[in-house]
Amino acid sequence: MAPNQVDNLSAVLYKKDDLRMEQRPIPTPGPQQLLVKIHTVGICGSDVHYLTHGAIGSFIVKAPLVLGHETAGVVEEVGDQVKGFSVGDRVALEPGVPCRRCYHCKLGTYNLCPDMGFFATPPFDGSLTRFVVHDADFCFKLPDHVTFEEGALLEPLSVGVHTVRRAGVKIGQKALILGSGPIGILTLLVSKAAGASAVVITDIDDGRLAMAKELGADYTINVRGKSIQQVKDEITACLGQPPHVSMECTGVATSVETAILTTLSGGTIVLVGLGADRADLPMVEAAIREVDIRGVFRYANCYPTAIELVASKKVDLSKLTRAHYTLEETPEAFKRAQKADVIKVFINCEKKD
Amino acid sequence: MAPNQVDNLSAVLYKKDDLRMEQRPIPTPGPQQLLVKIHTVGICGSDVHYLTHGAIGSFIVKAPLVLGHETAGVVEEVGDQVKGFSVGDRVALEPGVPCRRCYHCKLGTYNLCPDMGFFATPPFDGSLTRFVVHDADFCFKLPDHVTFEEGALLEPLSVGVHTVRRAGVKIGQKALILGSGPIGILTLLVSKAAGASAVVITDIDDGRLAMAKELGADYTINVRGKSIQQVKDEITACLGQPPHVSMECTGVATSVETAILTTLSGGTIVLVGLGADRADLPMVEAAIREVDIRGVFRYANCYPTAIELVASKKVDLSKLTRAHYTLEETPEAFKRAQKADVIKVFINCEKKD
Amino acid sequence: MAPNQVDNLSAVLYKKDDLRMEQRPIPTPGPQQLLVKIHTVGICGSDVHYLTHGAIGSFIVKAPLVLGHETAGVVEEVGDQVKGFSVGDRVALEPGVPCRRCYHCKLGTYNLCPDMGFFATPPFDGSLTRFVVHDADFCFKLPDHVTFEEGALLEPLSVGVHTVRRAGVKIGQKALILGSGPIGILTLLVSKAAGASAVVITDIDDGRLAMAKELGADYTINVRGKSIQQVKDEITACLGQPPHVSMECTGVATSVETAILTTLSGGTIVLVGLGADRADLPMVEAAIREVDIRGVFRYANCYPTAIELVASKKVDLSKLTRAHYTLEETPEAFKRAQKADVIKVFINCEKKD
Amino acid sequence: MAPNQVDNLSAVLYKKDDLRMEQRPIPTPGPQQLLVKIHTVGICGSDVHYLTHGAIGSFIVKAPLVLGHETAGVVEEVGDQVKGFSVGDRVALEPGVPCRRCYHCKLGTYNLCPDMGFFATPPFDGSLTRFVVHDADFCFKLPDHVTFEEGALLEPLSVGVHTVRRAGVKIGQKALILGSGPIGILTLLVSKAAGASAVVITDIDDGRLAMAKELGADYTINVRGKSIQQVKDEITACLGQPPHVSMECTGVATSVETAILTTLSGGTIVLVGLGADRADLPMVEAAIREVDIRGVFRYANCYPTAIELVASKKVDLSKLTRAHYTLEETPEAFKRAQKADVIKVFINCEKKD
Repeated sequence: MAPNQVDNLSAVLYKKDDLRMEQRPIPTPGPQQLLVKIHTVGICGSDVHYLTHGAIGSFIVKAPLVLGHETAGVVEEVGDQVKGFSVGDRVALEPGVPCRRCYHCKLGTYNLCPDMGFFATPPFDGSLTRFVVHDADFCFKLPDHVTFEEGALLEPLSVGVHTVRRAGVKIGQKALILGSGPIGILTLLVSKAAGASAVVITDIDDGRLAMAKELGADYTINVRGKSIQQVKDEITACLGQPPHVSMECTGVATSVETAILTTLSGGTIVLVGLGADRADLPMVEAAIREVDIRGVFRYANCYPTAIELVASKKVDLSKLTRAHYTLEETPEAFKRAQKADVIKVFINCEKKD
Repeated sequence: MAPNQVDNLSAVLYKKDDLRMEQRPIPTPGPQQLLVKIHTVGICGSDVHYLTHGAIGSFIVKAPLVLGHETAGVVEEVGDQVKGFSVGDRVALEPGVPCRRCYHCKLGTYNLCPDMGFFATPPFDGSLTRFVVHDADFCFKLPDHVTFEEGALLEPLSVGVHTVRRAGVKIGQKALILGSGPIGILTLLVSKAAGASAVVITDIDDGRLAMAKELGADYTINVRGKSIQQVKDEITACLGQPPHVSMECTGVATSVETAILTTLSGGTIVLVGLGADRADLPMVEAAIREVDIRGVFRYANCYPTAIELVASKKVDLSKLTRAHYTLEETPEAFKRAQKADVIKVFINCEKKD
Repeated sequence: MAPNQVDNLSAVLYKKDDLRMEQRPIPTPGPQQLLVKIHTVGICGSDVHYLTHGAIGSFIVKAPLVLGHETAGVVEEVGDQVKGFSVGDRVALEPGVPCRRCYHCKLGTYNLCPDMGFFATPPFDGSLTRFVVHDADFCFKLPDHVTFEEGALLEPLSVGVHTVRRAGVKIGQKALILGSGPIGILTLLVSKAAGASAVVITDIDDGRLAMAKELGADYTINVRGKSIQQVKDEITACLGQPPHVSMECTGVATSVETAILTTLSGGTIVLVGLGADRADLPMVEAAIREVDIRGVFRYANCYPTAIELVASKKVDLSKLTRAHYTLEETPEAFKRAQKADVIKVFINCEKKD
Repeated sequence: MAPNQVDNLSAVLYKKDDLRMEQRPIPTPGPQQLLVKIHTVGICGSDVHYLTHGAIGSFIVKAPLVLGHETAGVVEEVGDQVKGFSVGDRVALEPGVPCRRCYHCKLGTYNLCPDMGFFATPPFDGSLTRFVVHDADFCFKLPDHVTFEEGALLEPLSVGVHTVRRAGVKIGQKALILGSGPIGILTLLVSKAAGASAVVITDIDDGRLAMAKELGADYTINVRGKSIQQVKDEITACLGQPPHVSMECTGVATSVETAILTTLSGGTIVLVGLGADRADLPMVEAAIREVDIRGVFRYANCYPTAIELVASKKVDLSKLTRAHYTLEETPEAFKRAQKADVIKVFINCEKKD
């Protein structure tokens, strides 16, 4: 192993607001695993939430936890039984490895596996470090023309892919996306790739809506201060009809309600954004118009699709605004992520000589 | 026309609590219609609700309305262009005729047609009368061994069929049905016909639960006074696992919440029962476990299936408790229906000589 | 009615090779119909086949038949009960009107309706004429920026839409299209709109393959003189893997066999092209790899989608090569269509003053 | 380990017609595996075919191969990491363990995994022996009232479950099953459990048809000497309409052709029986009526369903005719299986003291 590899600097969260940069041992890959030298990690809202709250729902940081789960890197070592990978391969890492043996895993809905080990979700360490080991079948080779940053973005893009699949977005359909944060934006890109003929996207921030417009939204609506009925009327006016599908990326109850009232009878609402545990909603309206409400939990079998979309230019990630930091600058990077003035903050994890 | 056919006694609701038995003209079938001499009409909760409230949601009785929509009878006259029917054919009547031309009708989800004309839904008269005309393709011939009462029961049974389809009940699955009223009971029968290997049904009335047990429920739970957690634990204990699907037939918010908390991750909840317009629900729990929530509005393409189920004895309706009245006794029949001591009150609409 | 409207010149096929231009009476719209002044009609291979063979399969020209079914025009008169259309509206005509009452119509698969009346399919006259009446709900308004020729092209494009739906083409999938004729080309355009990340298309004509490449095919293969194994190997090499779906647009048995041998296990083959009635195929290979074989018969609920795709520029029809004739020049237009040197021959049906 | 456990008598096929009973070492379970003491093994047509031909298609017996894959037994030893099993548990063994890491495994269609290790399929040994090790998640506990023979029958029953799923048999549908061999019979039982209201089954042997009738077939047709058209007419007459789905369990081309011509437009044919590699079929008829043709390769996620069906009495296996042999009598058992006078020949693998 090259000399620089004795360095495995890692961003370790000890507890709420206690993030430390410290050395961890370099792990050894098992027979079906790869050792990956991390190149780029994107910071996700969930990483920030762990830092600022010490927990997400029932996932509580009880022991030091390496953060980071949007990851691209280079294969450094290949496990004995691994086929199809070589040292030097550029890869993106799907962050969750399921048990492979339960009801959900066998059915193909492995995102629902109760024994999933997922980067940066207690008690599983994440990828904000120099080196990680990872099961080879959850590492995906990047074509030469796909960048490491695009590789890291495959993680939130996979959420967009799963959302669009759960919504069943089809060619020629009209779609509503509520919320223009990173997930809303990526869901927009995937919706257009899936052939949606018109997408209207909402937000309360004009800057984010401008970005959405720039990235392909057909219509944008700033919902700040508007009643649900007003928003519904604007959406319907934009599209010339109710949307076939709605994808809710804010977690705000009134936004879910907007989706219920606005979606075409027989259509689908997908809940991606998570807000308060409970919501008071017009369920009879949803029921009698047969507007289905479906959730999204991470994704399954979406990385290969996401890579195809990026590699084939069906989805263009180049215009997403971004900022860059080194691994050593992780604390600054998290501050920048909280500022939310760019869609994605990237951390370069390479050791600089 | 035979002499008795100048009589078209009809049960007409003028307004809340004002039901009158009066003569209406005998209608003439259009070229694609049948004139049907009504034999048996079942009373539905919605008929009773119109009588006691003068409205259901936004459907308000503003003009005199003939009640009744669970209907079986005999073909009395056949329209010019109708094929496949003869005078004397015994038929069940699917009560709603859609526009046949809109987006929903063309897609096959005609239950969502906004221009549906449905028996006993303002402004469309129902079938509690001697004679109705109806589009022939919404009349279904009854095999000889299927009774008129079974023919009338095809209407609520079609709700059960649609519910089971929306839930996607499959062979070998475990199902939860919340509520043992007529729709819960019929949904139970269809679920078993669809191959559910175990069904647990809930209610707050031991008599209804006993009936459900008698009709095939594998487990019954009286939920009166129990917490949601208690009910969840009992359901899971009965089934040995969480139910794959849940069908909510009460409309009570705590019952929907029970379904959300209890259903297997990746499973489906169908909302059949309608209660208060709004409900406060643990939506994050539904979302992150990808438990889909789907509504039911009437049914589409379910009558032929319902007939098959009854004719083939896959569903046995003979044990449903019932009471009988004549058309002239309609007011008494409605009182009996409000008493709810039998699953179905039938009205015989034949003129007695 | 304007003076020019007493002219209803029509292209009438009397029998094989006996096409006559003659006057027909101008029809009167029924209450749910529109009278449409035809602007543009595209010539389809089936029109040519009727001319050169007097029949297609069991559809035999026994009485004079107006040809033409790819149609766009302008509303000239509106039936009494029609809503949503005005004189002057530019429309495309979906050529088949089903019975609306049978099992298939109610299910939404109205393309399988046995009583479908379809333009230019005996005994139903087509649209190569000045005026036709058509059920209003099978007329679709064209946005201002969609041309009449695009309107006429919606017919074969709808075949492409139905094909892609039957194939289940999904984002990020690899697709194989066999045959670069008009239907293959349009299926290519729709596949890309649906998010296929790579499409390989085959043919035996380099010119057609060049056109396919120009229109978006990622890879083209000239299969002339090659063995099935050679073609399979080339396809797999192009895509880097077997295709998820294959859409067979030639009707040639060896091409179907190529699809069976090449498609990914668990994938789908759609048969669009129709050749000899029977084919000798390696069915065990299809069966044990669970490669489904699905047919395509016309389309259902595809016109609205096709319009959306064209109007939103998801599908760009502007580069299709074409030739133009007037209604009076119909015989020459059919000769040109037989020459097959352009993708589409259009006939302008307007009366020139 | 108990003294009798040093005996691991096994039925080993060396080559065509060379089956030897010999001792094999008792294997040791890995950390995720169970050691299972075999109780009952059913003989399948594929076991017989290996014996009489030395191969099935491209699977050739090149090294000594233990036969047998329909298996029930008792847990003898539990691997270190296995949860949920104890010594003494009665279990059925799903015979194929997939790689868990490929495209198909992750999608849930693990039956298509190219690296599947399947009992008695070269080079993987089967279960006609005293002891096998098997991955614990492919072992399924049998309820107390489910017998070992029923446990062994879960294997062919799973083929029936997968067939019915691939066919999409739904409540109230009419089904055609071609062939009354063991798979046809089990497919019949599952079809009825799934709510098919009428099933017609064909064969060329009256005895097998009588058995099918006894087991629940609504109609039986002996097709010997009849034309395809005759058979089609008889099927349609029995059902009163074309079947919604057809399940072909013979592998004979004329039987597939019967399915194509007889199945309702828009319906589905499933190919379960495998015959000659190639078949000459009326593919245009299938295509233009959109009758889908789908294959079946083993099964995925069917064992739990099969157990539920048997345990809940939705499927009653008690009436299947059978014969019994000891492991030592394996050669005789295979001769009996070839005789085909009972539906299933069982071998008891317990060591008799």
